[in-house]
Amino acid sequence: MSETLLVEAAGLERYVAALFESAGMSPEQATEFAGALVQTNLWGVDSHGVLRVPIYLERLRSGAMNPRPKPVRVRGTDAFEVIDGDAGPGVIVARTAMRRAVAAAHTSGVGLCGVVNSNHFGAAGLYARLAAADGMIGIAMTNVMPNIIAPGGSRPVTGNNPLAVAAPTGGPFPFVLDISLSAVAGGKLLLASKKGERIPLDWATDAEGRPTDDPDVAFAGFLLPLGGFKGLGLSYVVDVLCGVLTGGAFGWGVKSMYAQREDPSLTGHLLMAVDVAALMDPDEFNDRMDRYCAGIKASPMWEEGGEMLVPGELEYRSEQQRLAEGIPLPQELYRELRELGSAAGLTLGLEPTAASGSAADGDRA
Amino acid sequence: MSETLLVEAAGLERYVAALFESAGMSPEQATEFAGALVQTNLWGVDSHGVLRVPIYLERLRSGAMNPRPKPVRVRGTDAFEVIDGDAGPGVIVARTAMRRAVAAAHTSGVGLCGVVNSNHFGAAGLYARLAAADGMIGIAMTNVMPNIIAPGGSRPVTGNNPLAVAAPTGGPFPFVLDISLSAVAGGKLLLASKKGERIPLDWATDAEGRPTDDPDVAFAGFLLPLGGFKGLGLSYVVDVLCGVLTGGAFGWGVKSMYAQREDPSLTGHLLMAVDVAALMDPDEFNDRMDRYCAGIKASPMWEEGGEMLVPGELEYRSEQQRLAEGIPLPQELYRELRELGSAAGLTLGLEPTAASGSAADGDRA
Repeated sequence: MSETLLVEAAGLERYVAALFESAGMSPEQATEFAGALVQTNLWGVDSHGVLRVPIYLERLRSGAMNPRPKPVRVRGTDAFEVIDGDAGPGVIVARTAMRRAVAAAHTSGVGLCGVVNSNHFGAAGLYARLAAADGMIGIAMTNVMPNIIAPGGSRPVTGNNPLAVAAPTGGPFPFVLDISLSAVAGGKLLLASKKGERIPLDWATDAEGRPTDDPDVAFAGFLLPLGGFKGLGLSYVVDVLCGVLTGGAFGWGVKSMYAQREDPSLTGHLLMAVDVAALMDPDEFNDRMDRYCAGIKASPMWEEGGEMLVPGELEYRSEQQRLAEGIPLPQELYRELRELGSAAGLTLGLEPTAASGSAADGDRA
Repeated sequence: MSETLLVEAAGLERYVAALFESAGMSPEQATEFAGALVQTNLWGVDSHGVLRVPIYLERLRSGAMNPRPKPVRVRGTDAFEVIDGDAGPGVIVARTAMRRAVAAAHTSGVGLCGVVNSNHFGAAGLYARLAAADGMIGIAMTNVMPNIIAPGGSRPVTGNNPLAVAAPTGGPFPFVLDISLSAVAGGKLLLASKKGERIPLDWATDAEGRPTDDPDVAFAGFLLPLGGFKGLGLSYVVDVLCGVLTGGAFGWGVKSMYAQREDPSLTGHLLMAVDVAALMDPDEFNDRMDRYCAGIKASPMWEEGGEMLVPGELEYRSEQQRLAEGIPLPQELYRELRELGSAAGLTLGLEPTAASGSAADGDRA
């Protein structure tokens, strides 16, 4: 863990919004974008929070990402449509798309909004939760440039294509599953390397695609899909829905915001909203969800002090803690954000509320 | 591999249909049910084919499974409805539900049909493929009695909840992913035990829920979810959609057709159809799918003689071979089917086309 500083969420959001505005975004969309990233940090998903501000800013400035996107429908009708993201930030475009899916679901019971020509959208959970906040089941997914390898393959064939599903509950937080389809994230290789540990053979391969238990060899190689061929197939499904079906880019047609920094990424998403009110009273549904979650939590464990968690619970706990104590930023990221602010001539400061050399960085990706 | 006999598909279907008719099913539904099971065998998924005829028959006769179900809508409207399966065979009920979802998708672009009060539905791919045969993307899923354990848990908390996704292509077979959400099927433990091999620690646990690498210990224990917490969460999602959302049974409310032989299983399903014609010309979509699949097949492998397959390709090859050569039935199952026929007074025979002591039994589950 590197040294971290704690920063208050609201201040961080204002600061990041000012940065995005300095790169040409409207005040409203800059705030929406910044708010989504800071919210992601609050949930503890630091890999998809303000850590990405520097690359997003660079791309807004270069025009690789359109700071003033105007998404419009290009195919379909209300219950099932596709919008062109106008090369805007994925966060803005996907939020727009999920709002449209929710509106359609209010009318039809179910709404599907595909997206073409978008960019990196951060945490898929952001969009699934939008629907849940409106009393609906939300499903969000995206394709990404191929970065995982088929068992036996020697080159990535598909992306780790994240997907999220959220459902409202009667409790203080929604049910939210938010996963990518690689067996593990690259961060786990790094951690094993630091600890000097071997990794399971189904996590990653060497640079030729051969399974390895050496995390350093794996670092120069590729990630394997979640659960072998099953996760591989799920990743194909996400690309079929986000890329092939929408009329957008798929497979190697999708670009990386890092490897092709100057290009729009041509990312495709699919957002789906299912209105539980079409089937039953929302209170009845929430009560059923609460009973379902209570059943999970009551399931016994053999681990001393072990605890069954429902999807979304860890994020809720992180949010409570970070709202109270602040969001931990690695010293290096903090310095980078400050320098970006100086370069942009921001008058707004970014002051730490406290500093801790031992705070966990909370990266769960 | 036990000794197997080869049986011609059409004859097997007639024979199984006659058995189901003898248990009170209508000739039409008996044929539909038998056809689905034999088709599953043709695809090589022998774990979900005619192997299940004895238990299905027993349940039809005891009334645990209603031989004359009349599914009706109990919630929702056309694009998004729930039907009561009337405790009928899952195959009949789920086919009915997918046909309704497809009809709704023809009108709305997307159709969702949930099902309550159904039974074991066999291979999820059967229903996803129904939609694909109609030019749509089909999604099918079902909950089952909890049979997998959370990492750290000491009792099953959720089912291995199968799901399938199919999409039409321009080629000789559709894209079809058909998986369950346990890391592996029980059959893999048996195979490792026979070979005297250890199993990876993320496959299964002992009877207390502790990870084990001993397949014989695992056999007395529980299966772990696909990819740990990610697959566990996906399994919860399937139960939320099939059980909580539909108003049906979920979690331990769903029963096992083996452990509770005399009871309706109260199984819930969700069937979804997405009409590609709402977005683009079906020929354009098929062409895009063909390019997508060609991209997968062209991806290089490090394995000598390795071959990239697309989901559904293995099933297609099995079907071609088995249509030509016959379906291999283990001697024991063949004998059991014959005895069931004698007991029911069937005049129809079940003659092997050839016999082979070394034919693989093809069980891929």
